[in-house]
Amino acid sequence: MDILLRYVVKSFDRSTKVIDFHYPNELLQEYNWELADQPQNLEEILTHCQTTLKYAIKTGHPRYFNQLSTGLDMVGLAADWLTSTANTNMFTYEIAPVFVLLEYVTLKKMREIVGWPGGSGDGIFSPGGAISNMYAMLIARYKMFPEVKEKGMAAVPRLIAFTSEHSHFSLKKGAAALGIGTDSVILVKCDERGKMIPSDLERRIVEVKQKGFVPFLVSATAGTTVYGAFDPLLAVSDICKKYKIWMHVDAAWGGGLLMSQKHKWKLSGVERANSVTWNPHKMMGVPLQCSALLVREEGLMQSCNQMHASYLFQQDKHYDLSYDTGDKALQCGRHVDVFKLWLMWRAKGTTGFEAHIDKCLELAEYLYNIIKNRDGYEMVFDGKPQHTNVCFWYVPPSLRALEDNEERMRRLSKVAPVIKARMMEYGTTMVSYQPLGDKVNFFRMVISNPAATHQDIDFLIEEIERLGQDL
Amino acid sequence: MDILLRYVVKSFDRSTKVIDFHYPNELLQEYNWELADQPQNLEEILTHCQTTLKYAIKTGHPRYFNQLSTGLDMVGLAADWLTSTANTNMFTYEIAPVFVLLEYVTLKKMREIVGWPGGSGDGIFSPGGAISNMYAMLIARYKMFPEVKEKGMAAVPRLIAFTSEHSHFSLKKGAAALGIGTDSVILVKCDERGKMIPSDLERRIVEVKQKGFVPFLVSATAGTTVYGAFDPLLAVSDICKKYKIWMHVDAAWGGGLLMSQKHKWKLSGVERANSVTWNPHKMMGVPLQCSALLVREEGLMQSCNQMHASYLFQQDKHYDLSYDTGDKALQCGRHVDVFKLWLMWRAKGTTGFEAHIDKCLELAEYLYNIIKNRDGYEMVFDGKPQHTNVCFWYVPPSLRALEDNEERMRRLSKVAPVIKARMMEYGTTMVSYQPLGDKVNFFRMVISNPAATHQDIDFLIEEIERLGQDL
Repeated sequence: MDILLRYVVKSFDRSTKVIDFHYPNELLQEYNWELADQPQNLEEILTHCQTTLKYAIKTGHPRYFNQLSTGLDMVGLAADWLTSTANTNMFTYEIAPVFVLLEYVTLKKMREIVGWPGGSGDGIFSPGGAISNMYAMLIARYKMFPEVKEKGMAAVPRLIAFTSEHSHFSLKKGAAALGIGTDSVILVKCDERGKMIPSDLERRIVEVKQKGFVPFLVSATAGTTVYGAFDPLLAVSDICKKYKIWMHVDAAWGGGLLMSQKHKWKLSGVERANSVTWNPHKMMGVPLQCSALLVREEGLMQSCNQMHASYLFQQDKHYDLSYDTGDKALQCGRHVDVFKLWLMWRAKGTTGFEAHIDKCLELAEYLYNIIKNRDGYEMVFDGKPQHTNVCFWYVPPSLRALEDNEERMRRLSKVAPVIKARMMEYGTTMVSYQPLGDKVNFFRMVISNPAATHQDIDFLIEEIERLGQDL
Repeated sequence: MDILLRYVVKSFDRSTKVIDFHYPNELLQEYNWELADQPQNLEEILTHCQTTLKYAIKTGHPRYFNQLSTGLDMVGLAADWLTSTANTNMFTYEIAPVFVLLEYVTLKKMREIVGWPGGSGDGIFSPGGAISNMYAMLIARYKMFPEVKEKGMAAVPRLIAFTSEHSHFSLKKGAAALGIGTDSVILVKCDERGKMIPSDLERRIVEVKQKGFVPFLVSATAGTTVYGAFDPLLAVSDICKKYKIWMHVDAAWGGGLLMSQKHKWKLSGVERANSVTWNPHKMMGVPLQCSALLVREEGLMQSCNQMHASYLFQQDKHYDLSYDTGDKALQCGRHVDVFKLWLMWRAKGTTGFEAHIDKCLELAEYLYNIIKNRDGYEMVFDGKPQHTNVCFWYVPPSLRALEDNEERMRRLSKVAPVIKARMMEYGTTMVSYQPLGDKVNFFRMVISNPAATHQDIDFLIEEIERLGQDL
């Protein structure tokens, strides 16, 4: 307990390193991690815990900006500890009465916020956004061709899904797994801000229909992974309605903005979706994992996935069986992911989440305002960030005078990886970089930790310059 | 913290109820569970925690026999708390260095125990046995027809999977999801003990091939859900070899027996499998969830599932990228499930798991020996249990003199549900019941909690008789 609490305190301490980096082979040799026949005593076990935490990344550190999920909420953490202690499974009311009810209450509230009348509809907490998106694809296919459940893809025409070129790779992963195939996922063009271009979507739908294929799903993104872009949901929904296609919104990253009066307009049109992925473990700071799939039509998840296993879902039990939600899922056992969100919501209130989100967005704008005109920075796209994603190149002095040609690009592409490697060696901060399309490696800054401050943003900039000026 | 520890202590106290049962509507009204705009204070939050635990099922209670996952291991619990505190994701070494290494070490050890030379092969911890089985199906399909990833099921012949009629429903669920269709899962006949009949398997394979379909997977079960039966893996593997079919072993429930010198012979032949599902969260008492899929051929999971998302799996990072295991998975973010198993293994040693498992099997035999000749009990199948599953009917005095006809069956089918409902109202113990095939509702007793004793088994029998004698 003390070990854990000391770690939590350290996580919030800016004088502590974010990471004590070791190469994999070093770390394997640094300590004896092997499993043996004989038991070890309590003291040894506590040492293992300390060692594990020594080399862990402090994901709650205010200068850890590496992923979409950052921060460490104490109420969320306590709730996760309670969940571990209760150690149960979500499949039936019988063995998880409170958690099943809390899932019901929480999903209903989330659907209300999405804008479905009275919070009606269905949903489930799944192990991450990729699986939530796969569920959406599965349910959309079942809605159009229920026979696919028994007969498989051989019984249906060729199905085509549409998503933007900036969308999350889980759409392709899902299509591969579901037997649809990645070739049947069409990547619609984006504008320079990373938003799906509705006219290109329509053009591709028409093209596909002319070939005799069947468009069955459009997955629009609310908050893309790299640019933080919001697809124009209203325009997309008009097209989906016109061609009778299931509209999914992947708001894994952007869904949190629905909690903010100031920012929720960015998801206008989400209320017209047939399904929505929304990960409270990202922008809302809930501990990992907590991802919801919301579905507008009730009963569809159940009929799509149920197998009526009589040993688990007995039909002659003495309580209302509609609370046995397990047969909606692909999973049999399902981890309790709802309690940490529910308890945080109670502790912060909707207004607390709103303040958290507004603060993170304000910090992103602060960063944008500093670097947009600063020497040595180039923005990857113009204009104020819509989410907390700020994408930029740091151009070291040696490259600033060069002409904009291939040689410069080649050299620029090597800058971010070196700075990142140095950040990790020093352990002072962490931020992600990546190439995208024809754009070479750039930094993608994101902020989801409300513990971050203006000073941490200032620190990041100074650190990039300190570590990159000689390149 | 105190609230959680008090709950743990209570869980082990036999004078505490296993469950304080309330009907769903009652429980919804008993307390205000709703989410609101305004925050609540710490005292209120602590009250919510207490209330949640008040109505929770004590899954660690020595008289909770309801599911395959029971018990509460203190080291496992501490490890899960540490995991929550570290709050990270498994996709890259970059953000989960220790956990990635521990997954590597632990999966290798599990493969050694399965019997693959030097622990070679591949694997992943997935969110539950159903998903692990779905992975096996996905990888088996990819191995035979890699083009399915891009082209979908339309590009391949009709694929057929085989599993026993007693196997877990996740095989059908997986087939439905993967676009194979439940009609393409053939349920092979079992003998009276619930073991797959190899000759029937071969007959069905030949039949399918004659129709021009392609058998691609046999999923044998090591420890069926209801009977605890072990399919004859050696015979199954001979058939798989003969017809060149991927052999999967669903040892979600039975895998734990591999830790026991006394019982591991029941899985003889598992070393010939192409993939194995093994859930340490069941028989080995690891907190939920902890399920491993092991794959004999290295590299297959990666090529089957990878999408090369450049924002996550940058190829120009400064460390050995083979430790970035995220692209093997269907999930993007993946919860850290390994640490609790690893730490428990360190604390108990392989010998500790062995003692745990031997004890649970001894308890099952104790139960079997008591009831096999006791008045009012009928065994569902003859012979000593192979796993901890003991399946039996309790026949109340009023039914004992009746002839064995439909009327008796009809009345007998109502006995177990009433006893179970009464158990839950009293809160004294919980055990599962179900029908199976033409067998009406019977009790399925399972033991996976090493805290259970002979006295708890005696108590269960007395309780069944106390609650059922008037029926």
